[in-house]
Amino acid sequence: MSEPFAAVDVIRTKRDGGTLSDGQIDWVVDAYTRGAVADEQMSALAMAILLRGMTGAEIARWTAAMIASGERLDLSAVPRPTVDKHSTGGVGDKITLPLTPLVAACGGAVPQLSGRGLGHTGGTLDKLETIPGFRVALSNDEFIAQLRDVGAAICAAGEGLAPADRKLYALRDVTGTVEAIPLIASSIMSKKIAEGTGALVLDVKVGSGAFMKSLDDARVLARTMVELGGAHGVTTVALLTEMSTPLGRAVGNAVEVEESVEVLAGGGPADIVELTLALAREMLACAGLSDVDPSVALSDGRAMDSWRAMVRAQGGDPDAALAQAPEREEVRADGDGYVAAVDAYAIGVAAWRLGAGRARKEDPVSAAAGVILHRRPGDEVRAGDVLYELRADDPARIAGALDAVQGAVTIAAHAPAPTPLILDRVAQTRRAKAKPRARKSTRATKA
Amino acid sequence: MSEPFAAVDVIRTKRDGGTLSDGQIDWVVDAYTRGAVADEQMSALAMAILLRGMTGAEIARWTAAMIASGERLDLSAVPRPTVDKHSTGGVGDKITLPLTPLVAACGGAVPQLSGRGLGHTGGTLDKLETIPGFRVALSNDEFIAQLRDVGAAICAAGEGLAPADRKLYALRDVTGTVEAIPLIASSIMSKKIAEGTGALVLDVKVGSGAFMKSLDDARVLARTMVELGGAHGVTTVALLTEMSTPLGRAVGNAVEVEESVEVLAGGGPADIVELTLALAREMLACAGLSDVDPSVALSDGRAMDSWRAMVRAQGGDPDAALAQAPEREEVRADGDGYVAAVDAYAIGVAAWRLGAGRARKEDPVSAAAGVILHRRPGDEVRAGDVLYELRADDPARIAGALDAVQGAVTIAAHAPAPTPLILDRVAQTRRAKAKPRARKSTRATKA
Repeated sequence: MSEPFAAVDVIRTKRDGGTLSDGQIDWVVDAYTRGAVADEQMSALAMAILLRGMTGAEIARWTAAMIASGERLDLSAVPRPTVDKHSTGGVGDKITLPLTPLVAACGGAVPQLSGRGLGHTGGTLDKLETIPGFRVALSNDEFIAQLRDVGAAICAAGEGLAPADRKLYALRDVTGTVEAIPLIASSIMSKKIAEGTGALVLDVKVGSGAFMKSLDDARVLARTMVELGGAHGVTTVALLTEMSTPLGRAVGNAVEVEESVEVLAGGGPADIVELTLALAREMLACAGLSDVDPSVALSDGRAMDSWRAMVRAQGGDPDAALAQAPEREEVRADGDGYVAAVDAYAIGVAAWRLGAGRARKEDPVSAAAGVILHRRPGDEVRAGDVLYELRADDPARIAGALDAVQGAVTIAAHAPAPTPLILDRVAQTRRAKAKPRARKSTRATKA
Repeated sequence: MSEPFAAVDVIRTKRDGGTLSDGQIDWVVDAYTRGAVADEQMSALAMAILLRGMTGAEIARWTAAMIASGERLDLSAVPRPTVDKHSTGGVGDKITLPLTPLVAACGGAVPQLSGRGLGHTGGTLDKLETIPGFRVALSNDEFIAQLRDVGAAICAAGEGLAPADRKLYALRDVTGTVEAIPLIASSIMSKKIAEGTGALVLDVKVGSGAFMKSLDDARVLARTMVELGGAHGVTTVALLTEMSTPLGRAVGNAVEVEESVEVLAGGGPADIVELTLALAREMLACAGLSDVDPSVALSDGRAMDSWRAMVRAQGGDPDAALAQAPEREEVRADGDGYVAAVDAYAIGVAAWRLGAGRARKEDPVSAAAGVILHRRPGDEVRAGDVLYELRADDPARIAGALDAVQGAVTIAAHAPAPTPLILDRVAQTRRAKAKPRARKSTRATKA
């Protein structure tokens, strides 16, 4: 036994409410990555972490150990300031698609390493792969060259980046240990720090369609991640945004690409435009480009040019027709009134069952399947109006989705009070917390 | 996916403090046994059970599912009443060795399925295997025949008995999930109920050398197990007994067999004799043989005859010389006074390091290694008197053991107040709890 620690002792320490030492954390992350700590030991530790928590110092060390398990990309060959965005995942959240080329059009370089959908939340890579020819696998050299030439790249993380996280994430998914704030924060931040970005804006989703159901939990997660970024020299800001309602009108893969292209063409749903611009302003501020107004680049076509350049650089055809679903089912209102709520979770599950998402990592997804919302909260409806439309490749999937979507749309006699999209903002500054939307007067402080 | 449940949902239910349904419990135990629930999922569930607990109904169902994972022995061919004993494990706890033949000599049949030592606690099978020729592996037919002919058999549990427990026990050992009362209780009781015994006496150890460090925890465990026995028609009584001090003077394998034979010959340390007789009286009462006085069978040689018959029936030679350790180190008192305490845990660790125990299931143990206590609590000592003696096959092991045993013996100016060996008694009756040692006036009630 040449190992300096025993896995059982590390597990017991956390199980009994203790604090793991730096040496224990460094060892257990490294030993798990090389297989000296078994899956069944790490899952027991993950459950103990979920139920007992971790101190800020433990989370910081754990994150550092995950970064140290692999390579850290060097983006110094990219002449522009690098800034990335990460969303904790939602329903209809296609913001990365218009946002990445928009920030590139404004002078930033966006090194987007994205993931695939799992469960009821979609994944950026699945959406982009509906574009004929689009390659999500880039080598490190291709990635850096594209950031230099186009300023935008959206691809899958390479095998060499935070391998401890890749292994642990897959384990947590099957062992009921996903919902641990220390593990969520260290998973996200280890990948983002390892990808080499100079700054990072986090979109922490709150609500039925999000991972964090309460604003308090979301604030803790945001604060934890912002501090981790600062500790590693990555300027980090988080927006807490509403995810009880799906974003936009399209939920799926190709349908979300189509909606994103509408936004890049100067149109698209108001909430998508609002959130894209809010995140773009935060990213530009973090990148030292706060004088650039992203709304201009969106309306004058430069963001669309960046999008087309990025798609082409990754082998895709920006003019190709996207897959269309042969099976469509419209759901109509049975009375008059106003849409009071559209439940993001129910719509997410419906899109998933229609084929847009996957049950297991290995499963394929349908390009064309999804849900199109014809009415959103606040809209007036009359009996017989189409509320939403389900799309699938296979008619059998429509029935299963109809079941999930029962009661997803609430109709009321009066229009609901409008709810803000951006709920809060968390930055590294120790000064008084900025009010939501008062972005121009508050800046992230470089760590 | 033909499985009726998803492992992640079962884990989440317990993780979030919920109660598992009967269907969830039946499924997860069965699916784990056949490999449809993975080790890493079961260890996460075990950690959630450890930290969240289980209701009495959940523990009962879990135990029933573990029993149902394998065969339940039918001992109806044994003409005598069957009654077994189980100890939760201690240091120097060789009571099974004199007790089993003693109860057989009094008219009972004792179907002892025993285990091996792990960590600082010894195992009955390791001790018996120091007798030349002794076989601990018996077929079910051999086991039943020996119970019919001799009334006593001590052997390893067959592969067919509670296979779910065998798999789960090995998993808990490496994942820091041993110390969960619901899992300890269901593990012990599933094996004992499956072995087919009609009655059971539990020796629940309390103190530094035991698994349960506090009397309160031990009472919860005892009560849980007594209720499980009752629910399955097995008359069950528990004694809570002291395990801060090693039992007797010998801690090891062959040395404990030698001490047990002394007891069967009418001698031996007073605490071993006291506990053996107390447990024998409980077992005889449970078996409907309360009129038999076991102290007579111990003094008139009938218990020794049963021992010799049992050893011979299992291929052993009761007259063979046992292994003797070549390396011996005496530790002496450095001042005058009285022995105030001998720490069971430190002595157990020392014996383990000397080679009497194993670090991993696969490791062999030394027959001869161990610790011999020359002085016990209450004994007067003078400077230079031998306190204890370490024995090993290999001189290198002595140094490691000396380290463990530092401060294990406390010398005080005055003799300590005597402490009771039997701390409490838990029976199935709902009447007022019996006072310790007032055994003759209280009987276990048949469930």
